[in-house]
Amino acid sequence: MRGFAMLKIGETGWIEKPKPVAGPYDAIVAPLAIAPCTSDIHTVYSGAIGERHNLILGHEAVGQVVEVGKEVSYIKAGDRVVVPAITPNWRTLQIQHGVPHQHSESLLSGWKFSNDKDGVFAEFFHVNDADMNLAKLPNEISLEAASMMPDMMTTGFHGAELANIQIGSNVAVIGIGPVGLMGVAGAVLRGAARIFAVGSRPKCVELAKFYGATDIVNYKNGDIVQQILDLNHGQVDHVIVAGGNESVLGQAVEMLKPGGTIGNINYFGEGKTLDIPRLAWGCGMAHKTIYGGLCPGGRARMERMIAIVLAGRVDPSKLITHPFKGLEGVEKGLNLMKDKPAEVVKPLALI
Amino acid sequence: MRGFAMLKIGETGWIEKPKPVAGPYDAIVAPLAIAPCTSDIHTVYSGAIGERHNLILGHEAVGQVVEVGKEVSYIKAGDRVVVPAITPNWRTLQIQHGVPHQHSESLLSGWKFSNDKDGVFAEFFHVNDADMNLAKLPNEISLEAASMMPDMMTTGFHGAELANIQIGSNVAVIGIGPVGLMGVAGAVLRGAARIFAVGSRPKCVELAKFYGATDIVNYKNGDIVQQILDLNHGQVDHVIVAGGNESVLGQAVEMLKPGGTIGNINYFGEGKTLDIPRLAWGCGMAHKTIYGGLCPGGRARMERMIAIVLAGRVDPSKLITHPFKGLEGVEKGLNLMKDKPAEVVKPLALI
Amino acid sequence: MRGFAMLKIGETGWIEKPKPVAGPYDAIVAPLAIAPCTSDIHTVYSGAIGERHNLILGHEAVGQVVEVGKEVSYIKAGDRVVVPAITPNWRTLQIQHGVPHQHSESLLSGWKFSNDKDGVFAEFFHVNDADMNLAKLPNEISLEAASMMPDMMTTGFHGAELANIQIGSNVAVIGIGPVGLMGVAGAVLRGAARIFAVGSRPKCVELAKFYGATDIVNYKNGDIVQQILDLNHGQVDHVIVAGGNESVLGQAVEMLKPGGTIGNINYFGEGKTLDIPRLAWGCGMAHKTIYGGLCPGGRARMERMIAIVLAGRVDPSKLITHPFKGLEGVEKGLNLMKDKPAEVVKPLALI
Amino acid sequence: MRGFAMLKIGETGWIEKPKPVAGPYDAIVAPLAIAPCTSDIHTVYSGAIGERHNLILGHEAVGQVVEVGKEVSYIKAGDRVVVPAITPNWRTLQIQHGVPHQHSESLLSGWKFSNDKDGVFAEFFHVNDADMNLAKLPNEISLEAASMMPDMMTTGFHGAELANIQIGSNVAVIGIGPVGLMGVAGAVLRGAARIFAVGSRPKCVELAKFYGATDIVNYKNGDIVQQILDLNHGQVDHVIVAGGNESVLGQAVEMLKPGGTIGNINYFGEGKTLDIPRLAWGCGMAHKTIYGGLCPGGRARMERMIAIVLAGRVDPSKLITHPFKGLEGVEKGLNLMKDKPAEVVKPLALI
Repeated sequence: MRGFAMLKIGETGWIEKPKPVAGPYDAIVAPLAIAPCTSDIHTVYSGAIGERHNLILGHEAVGQVVEVGKEVSYIKAGDRVVVPAITPNWRTLQIQHGVPHQHSESLLSGWKFSNDKDGVFAEFFHVNDADMNLAKLPNEISLEAASMMPDMMTTGFHGAELANIQIGSNVAVIGIGPVGLMGVAGAVLRGAARIFAVGSRPKCVELAKFYGATDIVNYKNGDIVQQILDLNHGQVDHVIVAGGNESVLGQAVEMLKPGGTIGNINYFGEGKTLDIPRLAWGCGMAHKTIYGGLCPGGRARMERMIAIVLAGRVDPSKLITHPFKGLEGVEKGLNLMKDKPAEVVKPLALI
Repeated sequence: MRGFAMLKIGETGWIEKPKPVAGPYDAIVAPLAIAPCTSDIHTVYSGAIGERHNLILGHEAVGQVVEVGKEVSYIKAGDRVVVPAITPNWRTLQIQHGVPHQHSESLLSGWKFSNDKDGVFAEFFHVNDADMNLAKLPNEISLEAASMMPDMMTTGFHGAELANIQIGSNVAVIGIGPVGLMGVAGAVLRGAARIFAVGSRPKCVELAKFYGATDIVNYKNGDIVQQILDLNHGQVDHVIVAGGNESVLGQAVEMLKPGGTIGNINYFGEGKTLDIPRLAWGCGMAHKTIYGGLCPGGRARMERMIAIVLAGRVDPSKLITHPFKGLEGVEKGLNLMKDKPAEVVKPLALI
Repeated sequence: MRGFAMLKIGETGWIEKPKPVAGPYDAIVAPLAIAPCTSDIHTVYSGAIGERHNLILGHEAVGQVVEVGKEVSYIKAGDRVVVPAITPNWRTLQIQHGVPHQHSESLLSGWKFSNDKDGVFAEFFHVNDADMNLAKLPNEISLEAASMMPDMMTTGFHGAELANIQIGSNVAVIGIGPVGLMGVAGAVLRGAARIFAVGSRPKCVELAKFYGATDIVNYKNGDIVQQILDLNHGQVDHVIVAGGNESVLGQAVEMLKPGGTIGNINYFGEGKTLDIPRLAWGCGMAHKTIYGGLCPGGRARMERMIAIVLAGRVDPSKLITHPFKGLEGVEKGLNLMKDKPAEVVKPLALI
Repeated sequence: MRGFAMLKIGETGWIEKPKPVAGPYDAIVAPLAIAPCTSDIHTVYSGAIGERHNLILGHEAVGQVVEVGKEVSYIKAGDRVVVPAITPNWRTLQIQHGVPHQHSESLLSGWKFSNDKDGVFAEFFHVNDADMNLAKLPNEISLEAASMMPDMMTTGFHGAELANIQIGSNVAVIGIGPVGLMGVAGAVLRGAARIFAVGSRPKCVELAKFYGATDIVNYKNGDIVQQILDLNHGQVDHVIVAGGNESVLGQAVEMLKPGGTIGNINYFGEGKTLDIPRLAWGCGMAHKTIYGGLCPGGRARMERMIAIVLAGRVDPSKLITHPFKGLEGVEKGLNLMKDKPAEVVKPLALI
């Protein structure tokens, strides 16, 4: 079969590989819609997860099941499914201990696509534990909306969950790429009142307002911390970090109230350390929580994303600015993301 | 001054009383908009809090400050303010122990209006600890919207808070009077996907849909528990109880998943006990939490209600179906609530 | 093989059954120490779980593995293991949704022994998902101590967990049979300061003090609620309910502070409803949480019980007042529990 | 009156000041027992809170009330009281918003002694809001034990609270000075099983074992992270940070499980930033919570410390290795702490 792969650090291309084989609990899926992600860029061009050869890229997919293992009972061949980016092994001692399922075997072990195994940018891809990891897609939901569930929605919403937002809280969301935009939507879903969205690209600003931001903070107008302190007449209750470099946690700590929480969903691809400012963190005594985590996956989470869309709470399809037709679209999409012209939020390949 | 009072159990009327006096931390407020509440009905006609003589009724008010005590610094005479139904003493040992402020001195002690002291249905009323209990009303917000903050919004939202709703949860809201309707809005604010609203009056059903209910369950169509189990293909994640008699907790337990939470905001006015069904509660072992509480009050909570309305998240003014002009409107409104014709949701007197 | 069974409601006896067979993930275990439990009494003599014929009783066991299925890797034949009373299926959608594992498939579905299948009072018994449900027993721990882990320790400690005890809290523990005694120990493990233990039998009183009770409240000396209010100069922060009939939740509500939590671990075997007193529950608005749940099981929980004993935090072997030798001891033990002479806390059969 | 003061950065001495005056809610207290603290050393010799002139030092005291303001009702002249290091203003908007009381007005604003105003190393000292901040000392408790409550106990226990320890957790405690030792005791109070205490001084090691450490990890034997990973066969569930420099959070992150929590009670006196290792923090996605906070103060907290000692759960008096007689003892004690000979844990001046 054909797949779009990382050939080595800094290089991509189309390769041929054998069609994957389903174990007794697994499924083989053919993509219906697949989306490239900034983390694919990190993987290929920053070497963020180290060297890989001929690894098929991609972890955001909606697809149709073509084959299931003999122990699979809920999922059937022919089902249209949402495929979470995170597909853990659910039967582990760590889960019993309360470790989040994203790390059910070890740190980040739930992230398998385009990391431990081939990703979804191919004619077919493999899904472990299909009954526990795949959600059936209702007909009422478009492929565009559904394709934002595997990563964008679940990650952005997780930022709001991690930040522990309460009804009437004021919230800063740093970064309004597609994940940050879903962070804004997630903040609304947890009851945020005022939302300070930090970003500058016009299309992103427009969407941030669409998803519920009340104030836009542009770094071009000065220090973002000071701007937010001024607009809010003081520190905010919660911060969602969805972008920025290794100093962004420091900015988050500085704009955050004692007792507040930072929910980080940013993937830090570079640097040896992330820095917490000693004084703003109260010399260790400020009760400012620094928290961050990989997005939830699995079937139940995807079913909740589906339920949110069915209930009309959020329309994630607005994120897609650049739809392409055919499997080849992922290459065009990925190149777009690499170059990041201002008007791109999220490309999508519809197969 | 003139006030509309409970003369004794079962009887109301207009009385004259001396204008209240402000202690050093207090304020005297003249109402701008006041709303009668079902609990006023309970107080007068069911004797729910026991006998009272010539007690001025009412606990939902927006007003203008006419006088403040010498220790009051934030609030000034002339300020337009939202007055929470619950005005606790905030400097108590119980608060240090983490007891909710509604009970900061003893059970329900934060509920002072028309309970421990005269209520707000008068030319003037007294507010304890003005700096800690009054929130300034911005000009952008209508009196109609503001008048729903002291009780309806904060109570309904508290139902969603108590029920511990998560993103994508399915939720049942039992009772869609004005508090239940704000329970629906609160469920949306906490991320509920599907919301089953239990009620029958057409105006309430219309508003339930407006505030975010996805499904309406009418007891006239059969057992509400069974209807919800059928619609949801199983038990729900959370239940907000905002109406019903002493058997409603039992219904809530029956429609609730193991691990789920009931958030009760219903005022139970009658009966010696409330009943939990032994088997549906897993013989004591179902991990179904039964929780309920008086609405949060105080300045910060009212400021959060204001922030929610300013951010455009919820428009509570839609609750008001019967506005009246003048102080006398509270009598008309209360009589309406007593007789409860089908089209009444919430009356309001604009002074 | 031989097993001690419930023949029908009200009748027990020894029966012969085929040795159970291990599926690919299962283990067959021979008991080393088994303990009868009050719930065996409920099962047989109150018909608490309905009629059963020739069902082997028992759910508290330490044993030696004699055979494992082909997919089992951690557990080996010959291992000495602690067998939790609760052995769920860990790979379920409900667990993904955050439902406690005790109900991973449906209400109480984790409770399999002597409920859905034969129990442990036999020459051999079957354990589902051995790698996820069995914990290896270190040599340093006696069989007496280990045999209190499957139910007594995990249940009693769960009472303290459910009651959400904080450092320096005062706590009432209603009922000081073996589960209530572990509730006392659990309260100490969560930081309780003063612990009011409600009971009367001298041996239990002695052990309650040993495990950390500071005050003993005997119902023979008057109303237990009033006694605790007097001793504590007010309501307590938390209540663990580990005994009592259908009115005990009401007593718990009455002795509990607003904002406090009841952790129920009592198995309510009779009655249609459990009663919450309307007024003490603040007419629904007291913020008093009523919570209760089946004990946690599984391998990780048992490993935590083992770790607690290894660290010397609690010595559960003191619970055993009546050790017997041989499989037949379970019949003697069960009869003892049935008649409940004052000096019995917990019998044990050492095989 | 006489007091022992910081004259300027790097210099201490005895000074004369007027006796403080009680406002209407305040008390004036004469010390019965006062203890120097490492943070006094930081204040004087590192200039950790900036330059101060003639500021009386000290924040750990038990005393006798000599005078109260006219609004004080619970506390009377003559009462023996425990004086928390943290004495907040309890009637603030931030407290309504759920900000921890330690920051009730602004970051660390609850820390007043020897920071915003004169400390307790004097013949008399001033306590704001006496009824809310002072706890009466029962006769059964020694001055030695009581004097460890204002800071050592509440801080150490807070480490365990912040780290969110569960029953049967394994925990690392980095640093076993007096605060870390109370961190060990706090971990036991929250149910820790295995406790890895990191330290080297023999007296501290002895006390760590006394308070419940099961394993001692000495940095002289190699990298502490690796030692703990080896002993624990993997990462720990929780880490209490009670010592170390700006790289200690990094060590904590490295030894911590995904899903685990760091509870920092270390006062970081130096450096611009604290460093989080990017990879061990899962590139931002490890679900490892970094949390830290100033110790709780106020009357209720001190009453809980008293209750813990009365119940016999912890004996904090063992911390005191160097008792002195008379007010002058604080100078001797402080000098001891400055030089930190190996056998010093905590000095105390008994007046």
